[in-house]
Amino acid sequence: MRDVLYRLFLKYKFAEEKAKSMAEVYTDSTLSGVNSHGINRVPLFVKYVEKGLINVDAEAKKVEVFGNMERWDGHLGPGIINAVKCTDRATALAKQHGMGLVALRNTNHWMRGGTYGWQVAEAGCIAICFTNTLPNMPPWGGKDNRIGNNPLVISIPQTKGHIVLDMAMSQFSFGKINDYKLKGEKLPFPGGWDSQNNLTDDPEKILTQPRGLPIGYWKGSALSMILDMLATLLSAGDSTSKIGLREDETGISQIFLCVFPEIFKDKRLQEKLLNEIINYTHDVEPMHPGDRTYYPGERALQTKTKNLKTGMPVSAEIWKKVLNLLG
Amino acid sequence: MRDVLYRLFLKYKFAEEKAKSMAEVYTDSTLSGVNSHGINRVPLFVKYVEKGLINVDAEAKKVEVFGNMERWDGHLGPGIINAVKCTDRATALAKQHGMGLVALRNTNHWMRGGTYGWQVAEAGCIAICFTNTLPNMPPWGGKDNRIGNNPLVISIPQTKGHIVLDMAMSQFSFGKINDYKLKGEKLPFPGGWDSQNNLTDDPEKILTQPRGLPIGYWKGSALSMILDMLATLLSAGDSTSKIGLREDETGISQIFLCVFPEIFKDKRLQEKLLNEIINYTHDVEPMHPGDRTYYPGERALQTKTKNLKTGMPVSAEIWKKVLNLLG
Repeated sequence: MRDVLYRLFLKYKFAEEKAKSMAEVYTDSTLSGVNSHGINRVPLFVKYVEKGLINVDAEAKKVEVFGNMERWDGHLGPGIINAVKCTDRATALAKQHGMGLVALRNTNHWMRGGTYGWQVAEAGCIAICFTNTLPNMPPWGGKDNRIGNNPLVISIPQTKGHIVLDMAMSQFSFGKINDYKLKGEKLPFPGGWDSQNNLTDDPEKILTQPRGLPIGYWKGSALSMILDMLATLLSAGDSTSKIGLREDETGISQIFLCVFPEIFKDKRLQEKLLNEIINYTHDVEPMHPGDRTYYPGERALQTKTKNLKTGMPVSAEIWKKVLNLLG
Repeated sequence: MRDVLYRLFLKYKFAEEKAKSMAEVYTDSTLSGVNSHGINRVPLFVKYVEKGLINVDAEAKKVEVFGNMERWDGHLGPGIINAVKCTDRATALAKQHGMGLVALRNTNHWMRGGTYGWQVAEAGCIAICFTNTLPNMPPWGGKDNRIGNNPLVISIPQTKGHIVLDMAMSQFSFGKINDYKLKGEKLPFPGGWDSQNNLTDDPEKILTQPRGLPIGYWKGSALSMILDMLATLLSAGDSTSKIGLREDETGISQIFLCVFPEIFKDKRLQEKLLNEIINYTHDVEPMHPGDRTYYPGERALQTKTKNLKTGMPVSAEIWKKVLNLLG
């Protein structure tokens, strides 16, 4: 997959280094079971390149600096490349100052948000990253989509497997809701509204006028709004309101905040404290026999480990599409 | 109220400055409509003091420093005093470095989390603060309470009224669920489990074996867990697992992270960007006629403004309790 994607991106005129990095990230996301933002997303990415929405040659550039904080402009380059670069920079700032922040504007979809959480954790740092998106949920009390699902990523390095939270502010993505629809199943919990503005778990009814439900109702709505404010204000970039004016989702704003915990020079204590929390939650009696609890990122790592052994499941239809693009 | 509380805290041997500050914070929280962590909470606070769980004379002290990050020990002093001090310090660090972080361990309940969001915003900074708590929710898939509702506060300064998110990771607090029970009403959404482990909106059933529901089910569970990890690891303090071993909630860990956005020297642009987001969400057609949307903190400010004019509603029973404590 990495090789096919590398050649595909070269075909679309990406520089070798960038083609390599993107192929790596898309493949790794698929390996970790996040096909929706891995291989499944490649055809749409290519379409954006063809439409000229993604500048193949653009480089993210530093615009302003203040000590441990920097503003960068993504110049509408590929979201993965921009995000990898800014993550790298935020990590370097954290290692130098204890904490570092990069605010990035004019960028494109970073695909799997967890990518940057894992990247920061691999570098021994803590990450708090988030992005705004096009409007895809109503603010609480409103009828129309005016807030984004603004994924939030928080990660903590750990020897036995990093802790990585990667969550959008919507209860279910529209992709997930569509999966339920295709299977002819109801959602396990309400995930949006029907045309009469009633909350429903019926995927078909939600998708006729897609409006995502914020996690925790009014709470996720408020959290989404304030993450958009932070990303917009710190990057001096576009908010969900501006992104929503465009035909496609582009020109988004992102935050990469890193903390270097090793400055406290007690890595062993830190591992002990993390284990204490993980063991306490692992040891709980399951609510339903056979269930178990996981720490954030635990399942993604399990899936990756399993897929590395037994191969990763990929939709034959998607794979054919990708090969066709390669020609 | 401020005067009565000041005298009450003096009676319990708090130094004048501390008694004044706590009286101010409890009164302000009540003014803002957060009675649960304002006046209603005072009798419990006094009980903790009487039980010796709160060290009246303790001072939070700096333990370790690394550039823009500091570790403080609260020495089990009053949560409000410790949190105000660490908020102040994180703000000062941010003004000096762009960003600042204070991790506080061995402290007590900070009461209304929003207090510190407003404090940071008043100082012209952005805040990201959170605290761990005793276990009061099951981790997703588990039967027993092993994670805290770990309130998260994010604030942004704004001339026409600061933006302050103050949200716990539980869909409803047990106090709120009890309010519904007393009114003989169901919750508007499921808020916990009955004894058969079914999600329910029946407050009575939830409160027989209180287990809070995380916002967004598995999502809020994961977010709660990782906030506990960050607070514990960065402060080298106690996690929810350790706090849960005690009879009462004490010795908790908190994070105060501040960003000074004025370093980017474009306050006017920042206000414009915030307004753009606020107006976009305000202008939405309501889902139910007569409803409207709010930005985080908008309603608390409205309540405060209204209460300053017309007086604040306080339970006669609670007020009598407080006066009785004063003797």
